[in-house]
Amino acid sequence: MLVPTTHPLQAGLTAESTLISAYRGIRPATTPVWFMRQAGRSLPEYRELRVGTEMLQACLTPELASEITLQPVRRHAVDAGIFFSDIVVPLKLVGVDVSIVPGRGPVMGKAVRTAADVAELVANDPAQLDSALGPIIDAVARTVAELGTTPLIGFAGAPFTLAAYLVEGGPSKDHIRARTMMHSDPESWAALMAWTAEITGRFLRAQVLAGASAAQLFDSWAGSLSPDDYARHVAPASARVLEFVRDLTFTLPDGTTEARVPVVHFGVGTGEILPQMRDVGADVVGIDYRTRLDEGIRRLGGNVPVQGNIDPAMLAAPWAVLEAHVREVHRRGLDAPAHVMNLGHGVPPETDPAVLTRVVELVHSL
Amino acid sequence: MLVPTTHPLQAGLTAESTLISAYRGIRPATTPVWFMRQAGRSLPEYRELRVGTEMLQACLTPELASEITLQPVRRHAVDAGIFFSDIVVPLKLVGVDVSIVPGRGPVMGKAVRTAADVAELVANDPAQLDSALGPIIDAVARTVAELGTTPLIGFAGAPFTLAAYLVEGGPSKDHIRARTMMHSDPESWAALMAWTAEITGRFLRAQVLAGASAAQLFDSWAGSLSPDDYARHVAPASARVLEFVRDLTFTLPDGTTEARVPVVHFGVGTGEILPQMRDVGADVVGIDYRTRLDEGIRRLGGNVPVQGNIDPAMLAAPWAVLEAHVREVHRRGLDAPAHVMNLGHGVPPETDPAVLTRVVELVHSL
Repeated sequence: MLVPTTHPLQAGLTAESTLISAYRGIRPATTPVWFMRQAGRSLPEYRELRVGTEMLQACLTPELASEITLQPVRRHAVDAGIFFSDIVVPLKLVGVDVSIVPGRGPVMGKAVRTAADVAELVANDPAQLDSALGPIIDAVARTVAELGTTPLIGFAGAPFTLAAYLVEGGPSKDHIRARTMMHSDPESWAALMAWTAEITGRFLRAQVLAGASAAQLFDSWAGSLSPDDYARHVAPASARVLEFVRDLTFTLPDGTTEARVPVVHFGVGTGEILPQMRDVGADVVGIDYRTRLDEGIRRLGGNVPVQGNIDPAMLAAPWAVLEAHVREVHRRGLDAPAHVMNLGHGVPPETDPAVLTRVVELVHSL
Repeated sequence: MLVPTTHPLQAGLTAESTLISAYRGIRPATTPVWFMRQAGRSLPEYRELRVGTEMLQACLTPELASEITLQPVRRHAVDAGIFFSDIVVPLKLVGVDVSIVPGRGPVMGKAVRTAADVAELVANDPAQLDSALGPIIDAVARTVAELGTTPLIGFAGAPFTLAAYLVEGGPSKDHIRARTMMHSDPESWAALMAWTAEITGRFLRAQVLAGASAAQLFDSWAGSLSPDDYARHVAPASARVLEFVRDLTFTLPDGTTEARVPVVHFGVGTGEILPQMRDVGADVVGIDYRTRLDEGIRRLGGNVPVQGNIDPAMLAAPWAVLEAHVREVHRRGLDAPAHVMNLGHGVPPETDPAVLTRVVELVHSL
């Protein structure tokens, strides 16, 4: 196992990067850009590398996870790597029966439906995860050693999204079984969320300690929640996850400044709960393409750095249409203290990688 | 075939009902209530009636469609019937190869992906639908004859949602193939939308002529669209659908007042496009549970009657929790000129019907 050495922030490698500056709310001269799911199926070099290796196996093989993380940075010259992993990896590492079915997503061996199911799950001590995180720490350390001054963003799923998979047993529309449990059995729900927060918080903390200069918490399905339910039944657990990384500080090369890694919080279709997602302790809020970026910034009070929100469906449009869209998103992003260009959802697998590279060039020219 | 006689509005049966009053923006003394998908799988009498009959066959058998529409009105004493049908019924009637797969939804024999596919589809003359609408007219006429003073709401899918099924070939997440076509081949997209509007408009018009006192246009998947895309690539076709019913007027019994049927427009997760959904010509806007009802009313300018938005996941909560939620939704609805209580999405199949009946009693007592 590669042992992490000095953290890139401490080594003075990434603290001045455009990404970290923007995440701290200081607008850099050039707008930084990266793409959610940039490491993945849109790249032929990724598809080649994955032949014969299952998704979770790839996530847990340090050489593979690291190489896959680096591929889009090399190809597109994006301003960040996003750690190649999956939100269910910490569940797998703590012994939950989960697999990723191609074309479908994470599927559980057994859905967690009853109070007894929850009790059985949460009886697993989250602290045992720490001893299983070797492959993650190794992969992150390898990756940051290669990335140099390009920051790596750590990756974790938020408790609600993980709980939605656990309760539903797999992907679902509207996640109504999970959302029903929070009302029909609030005690079991709270226990499930608290346990999941401990698991995913440890997963994220390990990545930061191993060298990630920022972190993104994906609450992919939080957009299925009403603002009231999010605040009452979800936000406390997401706040708990962020406590795992908030207390980590790194002394910058000046010897006096203590820096912690900025945290981005994103979910699909979360236009109704943006302030609540900030309030769990996020420094930056990612905004789905459904919400106009200027409107999202307004809802956040105008003083929060934002990330997003090119519509992924635009990536297949004629270049003139896509270019106009990217310029419009950039213009709308000027209402925030800083803006990191990204998609408003993940890269579709069918995307022509050359288009992504061209978008990076365009954003850097704006 | 049962031939429709005098329209219920003309006969003075439904014009003074609480539902139609609220839809016209005049708040009645008692808040009207009905439930999206009230006719369906949550009712044992429905499941019994459907044994051995496929979904689309049930929709096209007038006795069955009528009886299924009436079941929840009898059981729950809701203030409206919603015509039992499916948004793909007009496609089926015009000869498109479509079936409804239990647990999955509408599936097309062939997806409409290319310009040639679109050209082939739109070569079917929409006017030929008129001669195939007999079973629909029959079912509506039977139903309104039974409903008396309870209004029937006609039902149709909006062009975007139908196009999403056609392009994707079945249900999909984010409908990215359809949303991509609107950018990559806007001419084919416009042709597809225009054709679909003619089909679904005729389907809705037939229901109104046969006795529906109101109409609801379901753009189920419009929540996957950005406001810009909705306005540019979707709204014109939805406006065209509503032209099919806007010009139908009925002389009320006073002999002087000309009334047309009010139109409700609803989609899942459409909090970002509520004003645009009103602007296609809707009288009432349905609001998904994700958006706080008072916030939705505010976005609509405070002068539009609204419908919604109990969270369906709350139907399994202990009664005290559900009651508090319904009272809160009712209180928030007071900001609009009028409010029709409903869910913010369809009735989940597992719902205890007794709970729905109790919600009706509660709403009528508020």
